[in-house]
Amino acid sequence: MTLQDLTALLHEGVPLAQLLRIEAIAFEPLTLRMPAAALALRPGGTTSGPALMALADVAMWAALLIANHGQDLSRTTQLAIQFLRAAAPGPVIAEPRILKPGRTLIYGEVWIRGESEDRPAAHVTTQWAVVPS
Amino acid sequence: MTLQDLTALLHEGVPLAQLLRIEAIAFEPLTLRMPAAALALRPGGTTSGPALMALADVAMWAALLIANHGQDLSRTTQLAIQFLRAAAPGPVIAEPRILKPGRTLIYGEVWIRGESEDRPAAHVTTQWAVVPS
Amino acid sequence: MTLQDLTALLHEGVPLAQLLRIEAIAFEPLTLRMPAAALALRPGGTTSGPALMALADVAMWAALLIANHGQDLSRTTQLAIQFLRAAAPGPVIAEPRILKPGRTLIYGEVWIRGESEDRPAAHVTTQWAVVPS
Amino acid sequence: MTLQDLTALLHEGVPLAQLLRIEAIAFEPLTLRMPAAALALRPGGTTSGPALMALADVAMWAALLIANHGQDLSRTTQLAIQFLRAAAPGPVIAEPRILKPGRTLIYGEVWIRGESEDRPAAHVTTQWAVVPS
Repeated sequence: MTLQDLTALLHEGVPLAQLLRIEAIAFEPLTLRMPAAALALRPGGTTSGPALMALADVAMWAALLIANHGQDLSRTTQLAIQFLRAAAPGPVIAEPRILKPGRTLIYGEVWIRGESEDRPAAHVTTQWAVVPS
Repeated sequence: MTLQDLTALLHEGVPLAQLLRIEAIAFEPLTLRMPAAALALRPGGTTSGPALMALADVAMWAALLIANHGQDLSRTTQLAIQFLRAAAPGPVIAEPRILKPGRTLIYGEVWIRGESEDRPAAHVTTQWAVVPS
Repeated sequence: MTLQDLTALLHEGVPLAQLLRIEAIAFEPLTLRMPAAALALRPGGTTSGPALMALADVAMWAALLIANHGQDLSRTTQLAIQFLRAAAPGPVIAEPRILKPGRTLIYGEVWIRGESEDRPAAHVTTQWAVVPS
Repeated sequence: MTLQDLTALLHEGVPLAQLLRIEAIAFEPLTLRMPAAALALRPGGTTSGPALMALADVAMWAALLIANHGQDLSRTTQLAIQFLRAAAPGPVIAEPRILKPGRTLIYGEVWIRGESEDRPAAHVTTQWAVVPS
């Protein structure tokens, strides 16, 4: 699967991702990027919570698509986000990581930060259920 | 504060809410409604997780704006969503409730369901911090 | 199943519950009670977080045992507790509620308060997986 | 602060920790250990969820005590545990880490595993509030 394939899958599966232009920029480690866009911003220019949550959910989904060779075999059952500080104005980066694969439940985390920053803006833990085929 | 005032505040504060057309339809109890829109949907016509999370966050923000007579005095520190079942295709309803007001931390919940359903699609708990003035 | 049967099951399954003397006091709605005990207290006489978490987990387990006619068919996959205020010194009450039964995943909440208080000390959401038989 | 000082503080502050004999075994990185004890076990010999939650809460508290040179300046506001697999029978290890220190809110995680295992038994995220002095 190429980065282009992955980005196409993300945009098709979650149209909101297309609007926010969530794109994959690297495979190892998987890194997603959301350019600053008026629709994602709050007054003051920081990225809104809903936009960060959308990015996090799509990021973990991307990690699972890659792990499953492009097959969409799981759905979010739980997502918890802790907002740590406002993301600096500008693009936002997400790094998802599968912490525990499983036959029925999958658990992972996503770190989110402003592209120009080292310090995280948010930390996400999320659980996915494997869809019975 | 009128419903029109509230909806205007929501759209101004979170442009994504404008796009998804999140609107307040009742005050007692506070009820928000997100019409079915292509951008919020997944293949199959059910509302995507990111759209439901956006609705939940904006719904609790609306409850706090009302409690504070239109003043924006708090920000999300934590939001956890449990997806219970796919929302039926069509508009989605959110009912936020402040479970514990506080001087520094506020805690609440949001129930989300398809407009044509009684059974919930998701349950959200969320914590907000009062912004020092 | 009698209250005595239920309490016996709880003490057998989680010995810590025996130590903290978690007991069922009512079926409708299900209400569990943890007497004040030195081991559960913090300096100052309020009940410690770990004791409240133990009570919450056992309370939801009790609700599931009742729903399953005494059969132990599920295990905790996730538990999130929000501490709202210190419980008043004295016995503590837990009221569990199954919010969504399911064939594979179960979701519920537990409210916890000091026996002499109306206001809650903590709110818990918890997810359980049905154990394949 | 010595490991002996720390363990004494933990046992004094949370008597339940004394019962479960939670002890600090290393500073860098901070590692806590809970020996297998009948009270913490479930039938089958695996450590119960409540015992793991107690260990996690005390572990983060230990990390904060060390960061504050033995002063107890914060209290748990939120704790979420994801159970990943049963811990092997035997002692259990917890490794807490402060992910974001803060003036009002602190956020951290705790990994828990059986002493004889590499794979984690549970992952905890937790938020603490700094107590106004």
